[in-house]
Amino acid sequence: MNDLQHILNSIQPLSRDYLERAKIKLDNLTKPKESLGMLEVVAQRYAAVKEDLNPSTDKKVIFTFAGDHGVVEEDVSAFPKEVTIQMVMNMLAGGAAVNVLARHVGAKVVVVDIGVDHDFEPASGLVINKVGYGTKNFTRGHAMTYEEAMQSIKVGIDLAGEYAKIGVDIIGTGEMGIGNTTPSSAVFSVLSGLPPGEVTGRGTGVDDIALQKKVAVIEAGIRLNQPNPEDPVDVLAKVGGFEIGGIAGLIIGCVFHRIPVVVDGFISTAGALIAVGLCPIINEYLFFSHLSSESGHIKMLEKLGQRPILDLDMRLGEGTGAAIAMSVIEGATKIMNEMATFDSAGVDGAL
Amino acid sequence: MNDLQHILNSIQPLSRDYLERAKIKLDNLTKPKESLGMLEVVAQRYAAVKEDLNPSTDKKVIFTFAGDHGVVEEDVSAFPKEVTIQMVMNMLAGGAAVNVLARHVGAKVVVVDIGVDHDFEPASGLVINKVGYGTKNFTRGHAMTYEEAMQSIKVGIDLAGEYAKIGVDIIGTGEMGIGNTTPSSAVFSVLSGLPPGEVTGRGTGVDDIALQKKVAVIEAGIRLNQPNPEDPVDVLAKVGGFEIGGIAGLIIGCVFHRIPVVVDGFISTAGALIAVGLCPIINEYLFFSHLSSESGHIKMLEKLGQRPILDLDMRLGEGTGAAIAMSVIEGATKIMNEMATFDSAGVDGAL
Repeated sequence: MNDLQHILNSIQPLSRDYLERAKIKLDNLTKPKESLGMLEVVAQRYAAVKEDLNPSTDKKVIFTFAGDHGVVEEDVSAFPKEVTIQMVMNMLAGGAAVNVLARHVGAKVVVVDIGVDHDFEPASGLVINKVGYGTKNFTRGHAMTYEEAMQSIKVGIDLAGEYAKIGVDIIGTGEMGIGNTTPSSAVFSVLSGLPPGEVTGRGTGVDDIALQKKVAVIEAGIRLNQPNPEDPVDVLAKVGGFEIGGIAGLIIGCVFHRIPVVVDGFISTAGALIAVGLCPIINEYLFFSHLSSESGHIKMLEKLGQRPILDLDMRLGEGTGAAIAMSVIEGATKIMNEMATFDSAGVDGAL
Repeated sequence: MNDLQHILNSIQPLSRDYLERAKIKLDNLTKPKESLGMLEVVAQRYAAVKEDLNPSTDKKVIFTFAGDHGVVEEDVSAFPKEVTIQMVMNMLAGGAAVNVLARHVGAKVVVVDIGVDHDFEPASGLVINKVGYGTKNFTRGHAMTYEEAMQSIKVGIDLAGEYAKIGVDIIGTGEMGIGNTTPSSAVFSVLSGLPPGEVTGRGTGVDDIALQKKVAVIEAGIRLNQPNPEDPVDVLAKVGGFEIGGIAGLIIGCVFHRIPVVVDGFISTAGALIAVGLCPIINEYLFFSHLSSESGHIKMLEKLGQRPILDLDMRLGEGTGAAIAMSVIEGATKIMNEMATFDSAGVDGAL
């Protein structure tokens, strides 16, 4: 716990000075004040995270954490477990939705095998850093040990550190793991105190009966394991998943290294909730890409008090929402960096 | 009226066949069905407009129509009238918000002087096709003659035709004209039957007293000129603006030539309302880029039954919302064009 605690303790509130200076810069550009709405809010936050009034968005990376889930034994997903492996292969071949959207916005996709139940051959764009071969079925015991939960967070923190050294401007979160809306709903239920029935949705598309089963499975897991809502690592260990821990760690690492991080959808926001649970200051650094149509997501964002950039009824995960939002964020920062001022363009201000 | 009527009569309903074939194509891609939400809706519409299941988005152009408004004599804007000229110069120099966002998404900006009260020197990126030197003050008579209204529509139709020949994949609308939320609100009030007080907002940022004045000015203009809601050209002539007519024509021309067209914000949607008023089929071809924070915009979109792609509290116009939405549309079409299928990637479908 020492390393993690050291990192969490060193995170400072987002710079008020840079927020204010970015606002002044934006107000001098040739447009009515605040007329670019969220773009201006986003540009301010981006400048404040990087402490730079002319920040770059050139180098963009999306980390897609892949893991398996023992709880799929309980028939909580519309897709078979093998699809986790198949989709990782699809991503490495460049054929998944996240690859297409990342290419479109000029981002690189890095797939992180943090816990798939399979040994992949080394490949370009794949980082193998396994905490285990899938979690255990949390209706029969803890999903993982406390040490494994800490280890999954460390995988994410270390990746942020490594890319901070290589040089990266903005990072997006993503995931692939058949069954992973179930642990995400469980984590949120425990951290929010909301009953599973209020935070659990259809994931990739289960029907009414399967949804009832899914809620019952989550209720059973929480009843059996009694996760401690005051200790997010305990919650992650008892009812979470390796990729959720990886995302939580990535977010912590990005904030520590002042790299703007764009949170994808429902599962990624479960990771963000763990990170924010460990260090509430982190929340003000984050960019939430989109409102997922997974029904519990809006409640997660309400709990965090965050407004998502996009609302496109997406519910695919992988980092697809983060990819599109990255491009909007890039546009917002270019507004701040490239627009003419009233003075430079010889444009009169408001009467 | 003959040319316009010929064009309007030749517009056919959007191809159901292509909508369906695009849906089948999307459903075979490696993702849960409909899990990309609005991106899939947008991709289907794009394919159907172009009647192409592998449609290109490479060549993107935003037309920013600039015009002046006699009604600014009534103090309806927070900015002086000269700013129309200054902002056109700013756009030609590449320093306005629309330039920055268009560059970001790979679109070209073409400024169309359809009615600025100034003679610009010829310049790269500027089309001079004046219908007049600003409209007249509609509180004292018609904003323009019926012939000028027809002429402004023709300017837009001809631009679409010219670019259809040159080769363009997707077109965005935009405008610049100090005071132009006033005629836009007036046009919408007449076409919707809603009182001016319900559809008029703060534009670039007038205060409460100026807003009351603005509403009174619109009420006076409608009372004096008695525009006929059954004849959108009459409405445009009596209380509209040259750039609103140009946008209406551009939209008509794009639909006629099967070029997907992305409608910007409040003023552009006033143009769309005129186009749809002339030919209701046009509505199903259109992409609405964003929900403006100009208060009447949501009512315009409700009248059209359209859901905007973005909701970013923007209220700048110029084509800024169209620029960002173009990139989302491009991402959506790339999903359709570039993603792997379940078969090609060897991924199992839903159980």
